[in-house]
Amino acid sequence: MRRKEFTMDEENEITAFLDQCSFGFLGTVSPDGQPRVTPLNFVYMDGCFYFHGSLAGEKMKQINHDSSVSFTVAEEFSLIPSYFSDPELACPATSFFKSVMASGQAEPVQDLEIKGKVLQRFMEKLQPQGGYVPIDAADSRYTGRLKAVAVVRILPEHITAKFKFGQNLSTERFEHISGQLEQRNEGRDAETAEMMRKYCPFHQQ
Amino acid sequence: MRRKEFTMDEENEITAFLDQCSFGFLGTVSPDGQPRVTPLNFVYMDGCFYFHGSLAGEKMKQINHDSSVSFTVAEEFSLIPSYFSDPELACPATSFFKSVMASGQAEPVQDLEIKGKVLQRFMEKLQPQGGYVPIDAADSRYTGRLKAVAVVRILPEHITAKFKFGQNLSTERFEHISGQLEQRNEGRDAETAEMMRKYCPFHQQ
Repeated sequence: MRRKEFTMDEENEITAFLDQCSFGFLGTVSPDGQPRVTPLNFVYMDGCFYFHGSLAGEKMKQINHDSSVSFTVAEEFSLIPSYFSDPELACPATSFFKSVMASGQAEPVQDLEIKGKVLQRFMEKLQPQGGYVPIDAADSRYTGRLKAVAVVRILPEHITAKFKFGQNLSTERFEHISGQLEQRNEGRDAETAEMMRKYCPFHQQ
Repeated sequence: MRRKEFTMDEENEITAFLDQCSFGFLGTVSPDGQPRVTPLNFVYMDGCFYFHGSLAGEKMKQINHDSSVSFTVAEEFSLIPSYFSDPELACPATSFFKSVMASGQAEPVQDLEIKGKVLQRFMEKLQPQGGYVPIDAADSRYTGRLKAVAVVRILPEHITAKFKFGQNLSTERFEHISGQLEQRNEGRDAETAEMMRKYCPFHQQ
């Protein structure tokens, strides 16, 4: 399923990012109008987000009351210290990250076969090494359990993605920061420098 | 500031966790009633959450329209594969994590001196190695910049914390999973096994 707001390349990047992130944050609105943000493992599949939970849980109550939800996934790559840009002032301190924010409608999945497919996809994402009998609604070991679990589909009406890797920097500052990251080389710095080159249209390798 | 819902020990644990996490997720409600979840760097200070942003940005618009917000911070420690508990079925697959969910009212900080203190705290958290002139509203290099940035305080009315490390497991399963984590010893597994021992009241070392 292609989304009109993204090119095919962008869409592939977003899907790859969502497949790498094990959990995201569900936004719901309580009956009293209070927003609520719940961390959840999820899968992104055929253009929809899916999560699972207890049939009697607080999330299900909220969604049954108001199905408008949002779902956000974010990962920080590197903190960029101020002195990469300015020897004196703290102001340029920032962080480089990827985030995807979706908003849309949540709906419980009732079809047992689809529930099984979604949960099997969860397993393939979060336990890729295998070590279990594949989930199949027709398998009597799973049928009852699939009936007892809630699976929710979020049908996104709108998705935005922000991959922030210094795209707004001048060439000089860009080169300096990517060089500093490669030199520091802590945590994901090398990967961050690579992302800078990848996502900055004027600094393609 | 002590919160009545937690013991002193629990409050110290929560504060230490929030100090380690560089970013969290702000939940707001749009004028059209749609929830929105925005990832943000933050500090937790004197019992409040603080974030900063553009005075003209979308977040400020939403907060000015409806100041009820939530703020959630979560970190996944280890994915627990199903075969740590069951050789056959996928069902016991889970993850061990820490999360803190707060809800309350957001209010822009107007006082320049407090803005400076909050942003200095950001620097101490996210750039502990220093390398900048400390932020001080009286310092002419910072005064104008502090006026131009929005700093928001979230005054929590309610905070819940969930540190999920197998507290509900039987002794036998608990011992088996912590042993498997120590044996696998990937990523944060050793730390996760330590957290299991720390947070399970019946399995204290």
